[in-house]
Amino acid sequence: MVDSGSAAETVADASEREALKRIFPRLPESSATIVGPGDDAAVLTAPDGRFVVTTDMMVHGPDFRLAWSTPEDLGWKAAATNLSDVAAMGAVPTALVVAIAAPQTLPVSALEHIADGFRAACAELAPGCGVVGGDLSASDTLTLAVTAFGDLQGRAPVLRSGARPGDVVAVSGALGAAAAGLRLLFAEAVDVDGVPDRVRFAAVAAAHPDLVGAQLRPRPPVADGPLAAEAGATAMLDLSDGLALDARRVAEASGVAIDLDRTALGDDPLTALTGGEDHGLLACFPPGTPLPGGFRPVGTVREGAGLLVDGHPFDERGGWDPYLEWDGHSG
Amino acid sequence: MVDSGSAAETVADASEREALKRIFPRLPESSATIVGPGDDAAVLTAPDGRFVVTTDMMVHGPDFRLAWSTPEDLGWKAAATNLSDVAAMGAVPTALVVAIAAPQTLPVSALEHIADGFRAACAELAPGCGVVGGDLSASDTLTLAVTAFGDLQGRAPVLRSGARPGDVVAVSGALGAAAAGLRLLFAEAVDVDGVPDRVRFAAVAAAHPDLVGAQLRPRPPVADGPLAAEAGATAMLDLSDGLALDARRVAEASGVAIDLDRTALGDDPLTALTGGEDHGLLACFPPGTPLPGGFRPVGTVREGAGLLVDGHPFDERGGWDPYLEWDGHSG
Repeated sequence: MVDSGSAAETVADASEREALKRIFPRLPESSATIVGPGDDAAVLTAPDGRFVVTTDMMVHGPDFRLAWSTPEDLGWKAAATNLSDVAAMGAVPTALVVAIAAPQTLPVSALEHIADGFRAACAELAPGCGVVGGDLSASDTLTLAVTAFGDLQGRAPVLRSGARPGDVVAVSGALGAAAAGLRLLFAEAVDVDGVPDRVRFAAVAAAHPDLVGAQLRPRPPVADGPLAAEAGATAMLDLSDGLALDARRVAEASGVAIDLDRTALGDDPLTALTGGEDHGLLACFPPGTPLPGGFRPVGTVREGAGLLVDGHPFDERGGWDPYLEWDGHSG
Repeated sequence: MVDSGSAAETVADASEREALKRIFPRLPESSATIVGPGDDAAVLTAPDGRFVVTTDMMVHGPDFRLAWSTPEDLGWKAAATNLSDVAAMGAVPTALVVAIAAPQTLPVSALEHIADGFRAACAELAPGCGVVGGDLSASDTLTLAVTAFGDLQGRAPVLRSGARPGDVVAVSGALGAAAAGLRLLFAEAVDVDGVPDRVRFAAVAAAHPDLVGAQLRPRPPVADGPLAAEAGATAMLDLSDGLALDARRVAEASGVAIDLDRTALGDDPLTALTGGEDHGLLACFPPGTPLPGGFRPVGTVREGAGLLVDGHPFDERGGWDPYLEWDGHSG
């Protein structure tokens, strides 16, 4: 946990340059590096003359609570969610750049542990991917902005718009676990006033390590993105806002209907449909395609529009929109 | 100026998706786009199999004051500073991704004007460069995180480390104007308590448009970066932390001394040396090279180490380090 009350050296004590010097050796290296950190910009390889790029920000308050996430968790999650977006194009993640804005009271050791989280996530989820540049700023609000790059290895990118009637709809990764973990945290890892609480968090995390872990340290099936592309996936996206909302996006972009099979959605189909932050992959494959990696069938693409479950329209929203739902608290 | 007290629609009223829909049509398009905004990630061309990447964050408080900068100024400056870093590698900027974290009270129109600033800066400084992706988050602290890409067009990147004794040291862009502008703002565009004040700002901006403009809407000589590379520049960097500190970086990376000629530094050499945020280019060229674009000679590379002015060691620090210098105020 971040203990900003300790006597540890803070980012205010160190200059930006000193802090960066301590962070950079802990960051993972990218095998795509031509020029790494330390100049005005990095230079990376793009072997097939193209590169995939995505950016995502994590903000203290709406996106994480310091009573629940360690600094290493933050680095892990910031890496994992961006790696998942790269994978969802069918690309292999090659590199990240990371901008961090931190309160001046934050110990430099917290930044080091954020770096450790990036290293651990890249090593486990996308070996060879590393951090090639960054920026460190002061802010009242701890903020991590990550931009991730990927290599399509000569393949066409897999968009949301290519699903065709008859395709099999498949998912890789757990459905609903991250949302169930978040629900547990808000229900049981808070004090009587509803404020995130470290002691109660420890008990919840010990009792439900898988659900809490799915929320705080998601393990997106990054390798399954390129595998799906190789297998001929017609459409794919990262499941960030809940299966229902994300499946509707594929249906809309592709001009088709997606019909999900409730029995394929586990013991709690409603949470599987409406929970956010799964960071699994939803992909569509031509009928008869042997499903690659961890993909399992969950439905069928049909003529029409919108989302169906067992043939009936499903209109519940699901997902997490910080603008609509953030209560303004940090914790 | 941002008027968060108005009855205008705020980002809390709009969903993230709605807000993005209003912003994206105003953003500049990139001629490097293969897949643009709207999917999990963008896909860009990298014609010579490499790409340049840099990232930089602007945070309300340490990096800008809303009493002094319009939303359009913020978009402009966030684009310009990143474009300058790409140019400093000798590359032509091709695209940006932009992550914005905004207070829920911010009017959506402010985001639209930030987008207008990106459009104006790209059109003037780097035609063909545009925004290919982004992210919108909620935060108590308005924060812009930009990642910029560039194309080296087959050339080697120009690093900080290639300066050789005998090279001419040259600069493109104004020296010290941005720092003089900031000094004016802190001296005269504040109320009796030192708080940034819009009415006083208007008077200062009218009296000193060039200095204030250099601070709030810098115009880095982006096209001079590739020109310098083509002309054979041995080392180059973006002047972001003051000529003295940045020249020392080139000297250190190259294992040489840099000797600046005080008479080449204008009417106020000390501000030229120690002022930050110039976002001009410092480059070294082999002796006899006709200086390209806006470059003018300011000194010579010598055997030795560190920074000299007229042959004498110059040790003053200069530059702006938010960790050391931010007073914690926003305004």
